[in-house]
Amino acid sequence: MTTLSATDFSTVLSHCGIDLAAHQGDDITVRSPIDGATLAQLAALPVAAMPAVIDRAAQAFQQWRLVPAPVRGELVRLWGEELRRSKADIGQVVSREVGKILQEGLGEVQEGVDICEFAVGLSRQLHGKTIVSERPGHRMMEQYHPLGPVAVITAFNFPSAVFAWNAALALVCGDPVVFKPSEKAPLSGLATFKALEQAIARFGDRAPPGLAQIVFGHSDVAEALVDSPQIALVSATGSSRMGRAVGPKVAARFGKRILELGGNNAMVVTPAADLDLAVRAIVFSAVGTAGQRCTSLRRLIVHRSAKAALLEKLLKAYVSLRIGDPLQAGTLVGPLIDRAAWDAMQHSLAQAQTQGGTVLTGGQRVLAEQFPHGYYVAPAMVDMPAQTPIVQHETFAPLLYVLTYDTLEQAIDWNNGVPQGLSSCIFSNDLREVETFLGAAGSDCGIANVNIGPSGAEIGGAFGGEKETGGDRESGSDAWKQYMRRTTNTINYSRELPLAQGIQFG
Amino acid sequence: MTTLSATDFSTVLSHCGIDLAAHQGDDITVRSPIDGATLAQLAALPVAAMPAVIDRAAQAFQQWRLVPAPVRGELVRLWGEELRRSKADIGQVVSREVGKILQEGLGEVQEGVDICEFAVGLSRQLHGKTIVSERPGHRMMEQYHPLGPVAVITAFNFPSAVFAWNAALALVCGDPVVFKPSEKAPLSGLATFKALEQAIARFGDRAPPGLAQIVFGHSDVAEALVDSPQIALVSATGSSRMGRAVGPKVAARFGKRILELGGNNAMVVTPAADLDLAVRAIVFSAVGTAGQRCTSLRRLIVHRSAKAALLEKLLKAYVSLRIGDPLQAGTLVGPLIDRAAWDAMQHSLAQAQTQGGTVLTGGQRVLAEQFPHGYYVAPAMVDMPAQTPIVQHETFAPLLYVLTYDTLEQAIDWNNGVPQGLSSCIFSNDLREVETFLGAAGSDCGIANVNIGPSGAEIGGAFGGEKETGGDRESGSDAWKQYMRRTTNTINYSRELPLAQGIQFG
Amino acid sequence: MTTLSATDFSTVLSHCGIDLAAHQGDDITVRSPIDGATLAQLAALPVAAMPAVIDRAAQAFQQWRLVPAPVRGELVRLWGEELRRSKADIGQVVSREVGKILQEGLGEVQEGVDICEFAVGLSRQLHGKTIVSERPGHRMMEQYHPLGPVAVITAFNFPSAVFAWNAALALVCGDPVVFKPSEKAPLSGLATFKALEQAIARFGDRAPPGLAQIVFGHSDVAEALVDSPQIALVSATGSSRMGRAVGPKVAARFGKRILELGGNNAMVVTPAADLDLAVRAIVFSAVGTAGQRCTSLRRLIVHRSAKAALLEKLLKAYVSLRIGDPLQAGTLVGPLIDRAAWDAMQHSLAQAQTQGGTVLTGGQRVLAEQFPHGYYVAPAMVDMPAQTPIVQHETFAPLLYVLTYDTLEQAIDWNNGVPQGLSSCIFSNDLREVETFLGAAGSDCGIANVNIGPSGAEIGGAFGGEKETGGDRESGSDAWKQYMRRTTNTINYSRELPLAQGIQFG
Amino acid sequence: MTTLSATDFSTVLSHCGIDLAAHQGDDITVRSPIDGATLAQLAALPVAAMPAVIDRAAQAFQQWRLVPAPVRGELVRLWGEELRRSKADIGQVVSREVGKILQEGLGEVQEGVDICEFAVGLSRQLHGKTIVSERPGHRMMEQYHPLGPVAVITAFNFPSAVFAWNAALALVCGDPVVFKPSEKAPLSGLATFKALEQAIARFGDRAPPGLAQIVFGHSDVAEALVDSPQIALVSATGSSRMGRAVGPKVAARFGKRILELGGNNAMVVTPAADLDLAVRAIVFSAVGTAGQRCTSLRRLIVHRSAKAALLEKLLKAYVSLRIGDPLQAGTLVGPLIDRAAWDAMQHSLAQAQTQGGTVLTGGQRVLAEQFPHGYYVAPAMVDMPAQTPIVQHETFAPLLYVLTYDTLEQAIDWNNGVPQGLSSCIFSNDLREVETFLGAAGSDCGIANVNIGPSGAEIGGAFGGEKETGGDRESGSDAWKQYMRRTTNTINYSRELPLAQGIQFG
Repeated sequence: MTTLSATDFSTVLSHCGIDLAAHQGDDITVRSPIDGATLAQLAALPVAAMPAVIDRAAQAFQQWRLVPAPVRGELVRLWGEELRRSKADIGQVVSREVGKILQEGLGEVQEGVDICEFAVGLSRQLHGKTIVSERPGHRMMEQYHPLGPVAVITAFNFPSAVFAWNAALALVCGDPVVFKPSEKAPLSGLATFKALEQAIARFGDRAPPGLAQIVFGHSDVAEALVDSPQIALVSATGSSRMGRAVGPKVAARFGKRILELGGNNAMVVTPAADLDLAVRAIVFSAVGTAGQRCTSLRRLIVHRSAKAALLEKLLKAYVSLRIGDPLQAGTLVGPLIDRAAWDAMQHSLAQAQTQGGTVLTGGQRVLAEQFPHGYYVAPAMVDMPAQTPIVQHETFAPLLYVLTYDTLEQAIDWNNGVPQGLSSCIFSNDLREVETFLGAAGSDCGIANVNIGPSGAEIGGAFGGEKETGGDRESGSDAWKQYMRRTTNTINYSRELPLAQGIQFG
Repeated sequence: MTTLSATDFSTVLSHCGIDLAAHQGDDITVRSPIDGATLAQLAALPVAAMPAVIDRAAQAFQQWRLVPAPVRGELVRLWGEELRRSKADIGQVVSREVGKILQEGLGEVQEGVDICEFAVGLSRQLHGKTIVSERPGHRMMEQYHPLGPVAVITAFNFPSAVFAWNAALALVCGDPVVFKPSEKAPLSGLATFKALEQAIARFGDRAPPGLAQIVFGHSDVAEALVDSPQIALVSATGSSRMGRAVGPKVAARFGKRILELGGNNAMVVTPAADLDLAVRAIVFSAVGTAGQRCTSLRRLIVHRSAKAALLEKLLKAYVSLRIGDPLQAGTLVGPLIDRAAWDAMQHSLAQAQTQGGTVLTGGQRVLAEQFPHGYYVAPAMVDMPAQTPIVQHETFAPLLYVLTYDTLEQAIDWNNGVPQGLSSCIFSNDLREVETFLGAAGSDCGIANVNIGPSGAEIGGAFGGEKETGGDRESGSDAWKQYMRRTTNTINYSRELPLAQGIQFG
Repeated sequence: MTTLSATDFSTVLSHCGIDLAAHQGDDITVRSPIDGATLAQLAALPVAAMPAVIDRAAQAFQQWRLVPAPVRGELVRLWGEELRRSKADIGQVVSREVGKILQEGLGEVQEGVDICEFAVGLSRQLHGKTIVSERPGHRMMEQYHPLGPVAVITAFNFPSAVFAWNAALALVCGDPVVFKPSEKAPLSGLATFKALEQAIARFGDRAPPGLAQIVFGHSDVAEALVDSPQIALVSATGSSRMGRAVGPKVAARFGKRILELGGNNAMVVTPAADLDLAVRAIVFSAVGTAGQRCTSLRRLIVHRSAKAALLEKLLKAYVSLRIGDPLQAGTLVGPLIDRAAWDAMQHSLAQAQTQGGTVLTGGQRVLAEQFPHGYYVAPAMVDMPAQTPIVQHETFAPLLYVLTYDTLEQAIDWNNGVPQGLSSCIFSNDLREVETFLGAAGSDCGIANVNIGPSGAEIGGAFGGEKETGGDRESGSDAWKQYMRRTTNTINYSRELPLAQGIQFG
Repeated sequence: MTTLSATDFSTVLSHCGIDLAAHQGDDITVRSPIDGATLAQLAALPVAAMPAVIDRAAQAFQQWRLVPAPVRGELVRLWGEELRRSKADIGQVVSREVGKILQEGLGEVQEGVDICEFAVGLSRQLHGKTIVSERPGHRMMEQYHPLGPVAVITAFNFPSAVFAWNAALALVCGDPVVFKPSEKAPLSGLATFKALEQAIARFGDRAPPGLAQIVFGHSDVAEALVDSPQIALVSATGSSRMGRAVGPKVAARFGKRILELGGNNAMVVTPAADLDLAVRAIVFSAVGTAGQRCTSLRRLIVHRSAKAALLEKLLKAYVSLRIGDPLQAGTLVGPLIDRAAWDAMQHSLAQAQTQGGTVLTGGQRVLAEQFPHGYYVAPAMVDMPAQTPIVQHETFAPLLYVLTYDTLEQAIDWNNGVPQGLSSCIFSNDLREVETFLGAAGSDCGIANVNIGPSGAEIGGAFGGEKETGGDRESGSDAWKQYMRRTTNTINYSRELPLAQGIQFG
């Protein structure tokens, strides 16, 4: 058996700089989805302690905003070094704690490394614009300044990378961070945070106390962050249901937010698709991470003429998928995060059948004898006659609905016909199809790919989606602007006071 | 007497293409703040009619989004021509309806002209980024696509320009508009809208029906827009109280919003200021538009050493201000919008005195005999011992609080020590003072100016503010991005399917 | 007969504000390529007069650079209005003077209108960047400032638009212009210039004398501009031979230049092409403007499998082309500019045959009886066995070489295997082919299109090419930056003097 | 004595990975300016070997351009790591070889580290624009693609950093580099290059052979690079005389170039200056690197009212400058590079006196006994009555001319009244003075600073100057664009073929 023994896991944690004793408590039990083993018992922060946490962040902001951005970048560079150094260890923690295969655990840490390097580059940019003025002896410019403390509230499925995405940008932008990891994955978060602590230690006293804090806790702790007027930006990853609660709360106090919520991501496979490429992409994006990525493929919209051939290849691939211990080399599908996930999947499967669907493969629990406390499931594929209500619903599991289309217009309508708007893709070698899908009347998602699956974004682009996905963006392009405040400046250096729009006054 | 006679006003309206008979009704009585004369009696749209309005906009969107942006720009160019042609007339409607002096009425229309020309330029840009990919045979890009119907809900004080700001960008960005003008200023809105209708007529059938609609009505009509999932973007100008209600509603349905809310704008006058320049700026920005701009100067933060000299000059200027009929040449201060505004100002004056303030000048009603139904007020200046609660409150009237500071740090603290964050400025010829004020630890407002007042922004910069001002931006720079949706595209044109972050799968 | 009579032409000129008497002289005889009729006899400026011209421009610069950019934009807006008003007239002058069909003459003026509107938008942007500094109490920014007098030296084939492209940007950027039109097309240039003069007159005295000047003359006049250290930017359109002379001269005096030189533009037609679309594009781009655009299609690189079908369609289209008086409705191919052009085409045809080519159609002179002094030619197509020397040479005539390829790599090699690098395109509906053509190992040209011909660029993109085409860009995107100088500013507002790179000194 | 002994130097070289034996030859004698000691005897590459070198680069380009940019960034990241690791050693080589104080030697390497990190960030950007099209079913974009082999020809005074600046960007942009270091400083170049070689070794076979090459040699070797049509970009640092030769040559073959040539940099000290700050800045920028930076301060333009006070402080500072062995802690002024530099300085001093100047201090050789073969000089200050010819000339030595002004306009005229246009600065706390200096009618230099000296740029801004300085830019902002080629793409994915500008054809 491959799964890390308690001793080995303890060693890995120790490599990550984690001393569990320091966090010991009765509030949060961390169990591995692999085998149900208890990995840790942690103390939650009482909500009464939150004001002090937030105050520390606010104090840190007063100093950190004045540290030059390239110097702040130096801290993030050191963090990237630490993550690179600890990649193997953090990857194992992720894998053990949330059950994703080691390759993906490592990939998460790599995303952290990548975003740190990207952020270091940004630390000498953070460009506003200089702007010409309509008035003589005047000039205009806009500057981006640090915003304030940022709360990063993450979900279990990217317990390391999402914190890194947010914190790397926030720190470079001049903002302290308060990190609330998912109760299901606090150790991965802690391991990633420890690397940052290590970097801060090397960086020295240019980093104020309270620059980066981690808080373990339940939803009340998250709510304290959401509601605090001192938290300038709430960056929260989770369900659309969560976002529907958080968004209005933050709006009511005129705060800023980044919401990365549910996805219900589709792939359109046209007659002009390279089917072998499509099959590889479908398998990775539908069953990878056991279907528990926000960008996981959930809906396969295939042209009637290509359906039979595609399904034949797909079913063959599904059958040969190695399901099991994610730490074992060769495993492609690990366990679901917990029993609730398994129940939800079963519920959706039942609904799908009620709504006219035919299960083509999978859906049953496997390895139950080997792992009585692990919820391993054979990835399911369900042929649906139409985009029924259950298809419009995000089920966080390896459950792929197959829809059959006749015209590209119909395929795009289906792609867009769900409340979520995160990711989407088309497989086609036909330029017109592809560009139509990417165009103004094409996919309405924040991400629209061609000949790659909906998941696995590079950090250089802006990541996020429309509609119930939240509408905000993380990671690359100009996502950093959300972590700063813009000020528009008009400077008059003449001795006159002309008014804009040519107004004469007095 | 200068104020437009009923006959002349009727002619002006007719020049603007307005036929009041077509809007006749009992719901909204439009009165001129100049003399209380009834200008029109208008029918409100029953809220039951809103779904059809919104549907029309949604239908229009299906077509308009596919019209090439430079062609959309041509419509906006024509609108600019129409506004230019009708400038004198619309300016008079504005002046008559909301009581601002004619120069400012004309200035508003000029802003419309300016934003149209700016938007025409944008119509060949709307730039996203092309981005390099980490994978061979891949490339990335981001595109901005039309967003959907935009509701523009405006306040009385910029009854023409704010609609133009929003609609010019929205139309170029591919979005239909539904315009709900303030019940206090529907005619100015209608005049501006008519110019757009005229442009649409010239533009011809490339513009779908329902591309631009105006709705008169009460708050229920506005709420129908705020709550509709078909309204992609709600752009609302008004009080922070309004924004506190609208923001959460729009957030709850995952809509987008631009909120332009209250301001409580300060000027810091340092010992290094050109006092004569400062006086001119203070007068314009504190008493212009009778203090009813969201960017009006409300707080004067003056260094102790400069206070006496500044106040002497200021009081001299205040005394000589010509208050009266805003259509009369030479008038600088017109009436308040209505009695409620007068009451609110009186309330604030009383509060200020209770909180330790000394009225230096003004505050009394004037011209009451000549205009028994017009609320003309002598602009007030109140010396305050500290930034008391009333000073932190926005009073929409020509009421200027004077605060005395000793260190620049204190001045900046006061500048920032209010819930609003719209505009601010410093008068100083001292580089260090100026740059400190503009820097990361300086003014926390969306606008921070130097040696010009807080009001009167040019359209080339992003306009808007932080904190209770709403956090969003209109007009120049990249404000247009809020009227579009971004899609991040990764295109694989190779025959391989490498995964990001170097993940190996299968 | 349609061609404008002398009387009618005189009327058209007069509509354009041209009084030929004012330019009367013996130096330049302007003949219409349509029928050889003499349109004007103009005086050339003696080269000795050039220093004064250039001085005037330099004087004008001292003032114009201080006029705010949006105000400069207002002048360009007026110019756009004038061009719009005179579109029909200027289009006729262009057509009569250089022989392009009226549709294209009008299209040229429309380009002027478009660039003016684009430039007006720019006049509120001209964005540099604000940049964060590594030192506390420091900030950085870059500003773009006016550059100095710009010389615009144009060729006969875009006698109106190229001046407008350059002058609209130059004027908005704060630079006076000196315009030297081609000796073959001075009237079209003058008509376009007169519209600018008209705009300047309306604009009033904010425009300094000498802001825009036109000079007729021979190469010595152009050389005076090229060599003058007072001419900050030489924007010259013409042959690569010309550019090879101009480039070093300007470089030797550390001037700036925009060179738009020869093109030898190819289209790759793959098996996945829509052949009907391709045929339309080939015809327009190979025979339009009688093959005298710098972006004219000169090389057709067709896949062996598609060749027969394509040629069949093409030859059918070629046969039905209406050749004749370009002012006559329905004409698609007008005359060559002059006898030298005809000779050069004949020479190339002969060379092509010597080098193994087979003339598929055309090449003979037509309408010689009707127009004994007009050089009308049947557009030629020559099948070539390989990319021989003559194929690598730009012949400014409707002469299309056909090359047959087997692999896309070979097609791209051929596309790139000429000294010029202006424009190129691929016709294909195959995504991989298309993206490969647009990618890093694809076309090496400044313009690479998909499913449209190489000619007919929109003004929103940067226009220009690599290699012997000159390497510079005009028109859209950030081409305006070439008309300005950049200054990088670091501002220290602290009381310390830290050094970059952490250097300790003293 | 501090200067590195031969043995110690040999150890340092060896730490840098340099084996002198491998480069042994009779062609180039490397002497330390510190004491004239021979550091190495190197073989020059015969010019006949250059075609093979260039071919290797061209071959490497075929592969390197297809390596994804973020992967190329990984190589540059490794280079940054190597430079960081070798910082102390390379810094010593620089110091020993060109005589700059160790602090500055280290600062150079730090610049290399900084630019590598900046370039890594760029490696996920390299943004072009997506652009809306005027035609339905069309879109536009621009992409930046690798350009081709880049020759980097450097001068002695920044023997490490300038190579790093260029190569880091070139490599990330997809371009191989051929590095020709100054004959006076080949070892510093080699040490920097060795760090790159080490990075390439770690990077592995994704780097093609020939990706980075170093060539030692005389001007014929440089000329071979300048003249080769295979060298896409020549980036050359040196004198304006050199640039005047190189520029036309590259232009004649339609190549691209970055010229970083002479500077004649001024500081304006106004009555509103902080004189103590100014003195510190003057000393560092006038005598640092013994006045041998291209950005060294050469002209001090001081207001008449501030002159006496400033000079008093300055002369005091000059007198206390520690001149001597640059490797010794505390030394601020090292030797001139060679005897020719000393002669040139003497010549300029003589000229200055002939032209009316008064030597205020310095100019004499010092330490001649201790270092008979080292040219140490007391930094000179010469009071000049006007900006005479010698003042307009760049003397590469610690020779500062003092000019006295009365009006800011005159100061700016003098600042601009030289043929060079690299760097400039103003010391003033007066906003109007400062902004005027930075404005359109202010300094005409590529760099214009406020309250810091003209030298010591951060890598985040674009570095370079106007006029005889060359007109090009290196380092930050968008300087990377010069290392790439831009392609403008219009993609038609409709079934129609509309023409731009609304042209109807056929």
